[in-house]
Amino acid sequence: MKILIKGANVLQPDYSTGVADIAITDDVIAAVGEVPGDFAADYIIEGKDHFAVPGLVNAHTHASMTLLRSYADDMELMDWLNNKIWPIEGKMVEKDIRVGAKLALVEMVKGGTTAYADMYGPCMESVAEETIKAGVRGILSRGLIGFAPTAMKSLAENVDLYKNYHGAGDGLISILLGVHAPYTCPPDFCKAAAKVSAEHGINVHIHMSETQDEIRQMQEKYGKRPFQYIAETGLFDRPSIAAHCVWLDDADIAMMKEKAITPVHNPGSNMKLASGVAPVPKLLAEGVHVALGTDGASSNNNLDMLEEIRLTAMLHKVHELNPLAVPAAEALRMGTEYGAEALWLEKTGRLQAGWKADIVLYDMNRPEWCPRHDLVSLLVYSANSGSADTVLCNGKVLMEKGELKTLDEEKILREANACAMDLVNRG
Amino acid sequence: MKILIKGANVLQPDYSTGVADIAITDDVIAAVGEVPGDFAADYIIEGKDHFAVPGLVNAHTHASMTLLRSYADDMELMDWLNNKIWPIEGKMVEKDIRVGAKLALVEMVKGGTTAYADMYGPCMESVAEETIKAGVRGILSRGLIGFAPTAMKSLAENVDLYKNYHGAGDGLISILLGVHAPYTCPPDFCKAAAKVSAEHGINVHIHMSETQDEIRQMQEKYGKRPFQYIAETGLFDRPSIAAHCVWLDDADIAMMKEKAITPVHNPGSNMKLASGVAPVPKLLAEGVHVALGTDGASSNNNLDMLEEIRLTAMLHKVHELNPLAVPAAEALRMGTEYGAEALWLEKTGRLQAGWKADIVLYDMNRPEWCPRHDLVSLLVYSANSGSADTVLCNGKVLMEKGELKTLDEEKILREANACAMDLVNRG
Repeated sequence: MKILIKGANVLQPDYSTGVADIAITDDVIAAVGEVPGDFAADYIIEGKDHFAVPGLVNAHTHASMTLLRSYADDMELMDWLNNKIWPIEGKMVEKDIRVGAKLALVEMVKGGTTAYADMYGPCMESVAEETIKAGVRGILSRGLIGFAPTAMKSLAENVDLYKNYHGAGDGLISILLGVHAPYTCPPDFCKAAAKVSAEHGINVHIHMSETQDEIRQMQEKYGKRPFQYIAETGLFDRPSIAAHCVWLDDADIAMMKEKAITPVHNPGSNMKLASGVAPVPKLLAEGVHVALGTDGASSNNNLDMLEEIRLTAMLHKVHELNPLAVPAAEALRMGTEYGAEALWLEKTGRLQAGWKADIVLYDMNRPEWCPRHDLVSLLVYSANSGSADTVLCNGKVLMEKGELKTLDEEKILREANACAMDLVNRG
Repeated sequence: MKILIKGANVLQPDYSTGVADIAITDDVIAAVGEVPGDFAADYIIEGKDHFAVPGLVNAHTHASMTLLRSYADDMELMDWLNNKIWPIEGKMVEKDIRVGAKLALVEMVKGGTTAYADMYGPCMESVAEETIKAGVRGILSRGLIGFAPTAMKSLAENVDLYKNYHGAGDGLISILLGVHAPYTCPPDFCKAAAKVSAEHGINVHIHMSETQDEIRQMQEKYGKRPFQYIAETGLFDRPSIAAHCVWLDDADIAMMKEKAITPVHNPGSNMKLASGVAPVPKLLAEGVHVALGTDGASSNNNLDMLEEIRLTAMLHKVHELNPLAVPAAEALRMGTEYGAEALWLEKTGRLQAGWKADIVLYDMNRPEWCPRHDLVSLLVYSANSGSADTVLCNGKVLMEKGELKTLDEEKILREANACAMDLVNRG
């Protein structure tokens, strides 16, 4: 299949922009700019007045949790978890997981997200199946609460998920080990998980150093900060992504650089849950390629990666009282190329020949895109995800002119609302 | 003219929500819920699957500056002002002011804003005329830079604007005195402005205590903090709105309460320009009804009030490490009812019989509005302004199903882009 995107304003790898054609052959960008004369397109997408950027990468979320969007907000963290979130999560069955993931996929594709790292469960096979059907890249893991009585069973499920789905969907799916967090996973469990990850070569997805309380708890209980605690169980001997990373000291940052641990910044969730402000400018200055994520829709409350990119560019400026803290282009790179790197997606996150055809076109015929002095600034500081108009992933058109091609939006929204109401009222 | 909005989910004055009809007679809401049996609607708007809330109030912006959106970003404040913004503003003529305001009006109406407080100039008559044509409430002022050689001429222009336009457009327009800021207005000028404001009864719009630098400068120059400095010139003897109010001490807050000074919080601008975080939770706790604004599109970079509402709910949580800092409903009230109060708009900002028919309907048939556990949470934490679907101001339909009724969107965007490019390239 050969697709030609004609005359779009294209974000180049150096973050300059200019009008160009993009030629796509199967899953790969064949050319940007000078399309070979013998390129015979099967399908043409008109790019005029559109801004083409790499597909956005959501490097940390809990997709099925989207069913709980707006179910509980503006509460103290432990009250919210103990009395609202965990009890209702305990009632979720396969249907909820599947329908929640479908709702998340609709929202993500409509917002220009083409790859996401998920941690949830049970029944992650259903999430994998729906992700393949949607045509999105899913880097999935079974969330593992180490102190739960069923922890070892869940760990085995995660391994089965890896065996059955790693590389599935023509490479769209990969599987990580979803060790939840230092404060929910005791040493024996972490060691068991580390053993499994080494044995099978499964990379790790974990929450790290999200709140001050977590740091204090770990120090009280083990006399160690979370990074040191997890490292000593052997888990960080595998490449890992670490969500949040809000409260870091120099030793934590040194460890991230020494081992292959990529932090995933979740500004929306960190703001809403009042977790704190991660030291992102410092990490970037030290050469760490910080990725971005939305976290789950209970703590954000959407899966809008463009909003996370904007919050990243805005929050650190005011936090450090430095208007240069994270420039627009750097924030956009975090939400695209750095995210793809973090998730071990090869040649993904740039519009460049030989790279994967994961592309979003934003419709600029809107007041917030006017006037067009600087397209990167417009995207990051002014536009919202509603202008994402056409989305390709792995060379396949997932949305064109706002219409989803692989997902039945109307049906899924109806189903998700009914499913969520049933879940809330379930005895 | 009688309009009936049928079966919308309505935000009640107590911030509960429920399905109801809204009956409108001329500029006023006649009934919410039980529509009188003899109400014969001339026009019916289908409200199913829509969330009806009061029109959003942007209590501080510089509308015509929208022409400079994305012209200069990610710079140090004084470098940005001295080398980019002020030189190009110096070149602006009537056409730029008019076209910039039209672009701003398109963006504001599309985003659900029905009232705005503007400070700009020259040629604010053109802004008033365009605002009346658009059908939006404009609380306008001529920006007065006291140390400019033309300051007294501009002050006279502001008085003429008041004489010619206060109450114009069937009450849509009111006029304030746009004294720019303590650091741009020397004492003699402030005293002259205070005299004029007392003489004509013109209320005041001013920037106050935006940066730490401003506080330091004023203390060095006059041995006073900005609030004390302005109060001593007599300007605060008239009711005033004070934009930003980031760096406040207890005496400043006490003065705001003692005199009729309403702070306007601009979280997007304060974040992007790295000005600091205003003590909004403290002000609210002391009973101050803080309003919200976008500031100009050079420092935001859009006029999206829903985004300001969200940032208000999110920024203060993380800044104070308190997830209860500003709840969703309070942030929404700041962007509607408190904003209307701040701008002296009577009976505006609630959906209640006898109050002004300024209404936004949000289309909830979108993934980010699903599932519908809590509509206020969905609006504030999940939706973006792209779901604003139908907008009424003063009982007149300004937008229906995304289509503008009083503004020619396509033409204005084309004109604005051409005008902005001409401005930038002007010798």
